[in-house]
Amino acid sequence: MIDSGTDVALAPGGTIGILGGGQLARMLSIAAARLGLKTHIYEPGANPPAGDVAAAVTTAAYDDAEALARFANSVDVVTFEFENVPALAAETLLAHAPVRPTPRALEISQDRVDEKAFIEGLGITVAPWRAVGDLKDLKAGLAEIGAPSILKTRRLGYDGKGQVRIGDAGRADAAWDEIAGAPAILEGLVPFVREISVIGARGLSGEVVCYDPGENVHRDGILRTTTVPAEITPAVRMDAVLIAGKILNALNYIGVMGIELFQTPGGKLLVNEIAPRVHNSGHWTIEACVIDQFQQHIRAVAGWPLGDGSRHSDAVMTNLIGAEAEEWQRFAAGGSGLHLYGKAEVRPGRKMGHVTRISPKPV
Amino acid sequence: MIDSGTDVALAPGGTIGILGGGQLARMLSIAAARLGLKTHIYEPGANPPAGDVAAAVTTAAYDDAEALARFANSVDVVTFEFENVPALAAETLLAHAPVRPTPRALEISQDRVDEKAFIEGLGITVAPWRAVGDLKDLKAGLAEIGAPSILKTRRLGYDGKGQVRIGDAGRADAAWDEIAGAPAILEGLVPFVREISVIGARGLSGEVVCYDPGENVHRDGILRTTTVPAEITPAVRMDAVLIAGKILNALNYIGVMGIELFQTPGGKLLVNEIAPRVHNSGHWTIEACVIDQFQQHIRAVAGWPLGDGSRHSDAVMTNLIGAEAEEWQRFAAGGSGLHLYGKAEVRPGRKMGHVTRISPKPV
Repeated sequence: MIDSGTDVALAPGGTIGILGGGQLARMLSIAAARLGLKTHIYEPGANPPAGDVAAAVTTAAYDDAEALARFANSVDVVTFEFENVPALAAETLLAHAPVRPTPRALEISQDRVDEKAFIEGLGITVAPWRAVGDLKDLKAGLAEIGAPSILKTRRLGYDGKGQVRIGDAGRADAAWDEIAGAPAILEGLVPFVREISVIGARGLSGEVVCYDPGENVHRDGILRTTTVPAEITPAVRMDAVLIAGKILNALNYIGVMGIELFQTPGGKLLVNEIAPRVHNSGHWTIEACVIDQFQQHIRAVAGWPLGDGSRHSDAVMTNLIGAEAEEWQRFAAGGSGLHLYGKAEVRPGRKMGHVTRISPKPV
Repeated sequence: MIDSGTDVALAPGGTIGILGGGQLARMLSIAAARLGLKTHIYEPGANPPAGDVAAAVTTAAYDDAEALARFANSVDVVTFEFENVPALAAETLLAHAPVRPTPRALEISQDRVDEKAFIEGLGITVAPWRAVGDLKDLKAGLAEIGAPSILKTRRLGYDGKGQVRIGDAGRADAAWDEIAGAPAILEGLVPFVREISVIGARGLSGEVVCYDPGENVHRDGILRTTTVPAEITPAVRMDAVLIAGKILNALNYIGVMGIELFQTPGGKLLVNEIAPRVHNSGHWTIEACVIDQFQQHIRAVAGWPLGDGSRHSDAVMTNLIGAEAEEWQRFAAGGSGLHLYGKAEVRPGRKMGHVTRISPKPV
């Protein structure tokens, strides 16, 4: 495949370009350094957290074609820490360097309708959904799916914008106004007993390695904790891993992907969302595995063999949100693994760090 | 103590200056980044391995007083990755920033006679030794200690220079010529069944934390493997840890220290050498502990509480020396933790990386 670049492994000393300079890029840079690889961060904002641990930083906008070309020419392979890379940027980069994972994975995860259609097309269950192009579609969708349901813009919104919960079908007009008539998707709200996620990786030669599913708890729409193992049966664990493998293979994916799943009261799994990148719910792998999700992603995009994804310990990862990170002295005093992301400004809802506590895995 | 600086903990965002930019500084920088701290590397050589993961690099000589002062003024605390920091450099730095550990630890470990006298003064056993100022001292020493023994320059030699093994007392003149009449020490060669090392840390408030002793195997004078736990009884383990604690406390030490010990056929422990820094025989802590020796050192010099030093797994660390690192693809394919130091040039005897394989700790 042309957009995966040649099948040559990057030798130590090579450079991986990363779009975005936040905490995920910071942890990716650390993982690359461990393997003797350098990173070059491309980020519009000044003083990105990843800049402290990267060999080079380019500060430029995502629509600066010249800067993107220079950046891509200076690295051996390009990857990214988030899925909102503008399609044009990915295309520009691709003309100068391999981009891994392929831009196709970006496209799909950037459009909620494409994502749902793609996953459903693989025979994997998702929540009921309808594409909504106008108010008529919305009303028809509500008639089919029923309320409560949720209307979301197709393209990703920011800061919780672009999502409206519809408690009863009579609220269709108001909801349509609220998202300002943007192309949208109506999703049924499915009752679920837990959310789990699988961090899966696929290498250049097609091998797939998944970490054990973690169980996620959110608060105010932000991931709060991930606990591994999730409280699921071996059969459900196997289902989750097979779903992840199917998605990775269908995309000829290269790199790490986070796959969020809901388990229904009946025990069935539904895919909620995929994230074509390292994922917050995989941070526990740093302490509980010899090869963590960040090194796994670096191995994949560098064309190296994937590492063993088994864990030596159980783990609970807790995010430090906003002002919580100001209590770093308290967290440092415990026996947990503490991670602070080097962000200068504390903002409510901002991920500032995380802590992971491990415990022996029962034999 | 004036040379330890104020007892204030460095807040996240603070900067730790590191003298030296090799693999130890590289792993210290990574550990600092995990805690939201920045590093600034001071190193005479161009493109130091640590530079790829540091927020800043100063390229200047260790006798450049102006550069040292600028460097110290730009950081919150200074530490080092090796013990051969010129005394003048340490003094210059101290005028501008706290230096941790204190230069006293450097002084002692830079002079083999001072080191032996200091350790012996604590009631800890070392190999028999005599200070040698001239040929007469050497002959008297040989008469007392006997052969085989080893004549070493007091100050540290490089590349195996400055050390002569004396097989029989008649070789005294030749040995004295070989070290060119430099101030020296004569050490008796003590038979030992194993070498172990303790990686100990002491924090700003005086607390001491030690990792379990590892057992070291050398080849051609270079550390080859460290295996944890060492094959020693609980009583010997306790002795080793108490010796480490005594040395750390006697120096009002701040930071991580490597203490190498010989176990005699009779089961007794002798201190062979101390290294006032993170130590090659402590690399296994990266995979086998939540808080590794690098983070422990950063915590100590930053005035943070020390972390838990317990290990969750057993470990074997193997150094990759010289051309061995060219087989990185083979090492990457196993389940071990692989570390490559980003050194451009492979040289025989040069430490290029290491691998650590962990295994479950028996309950």
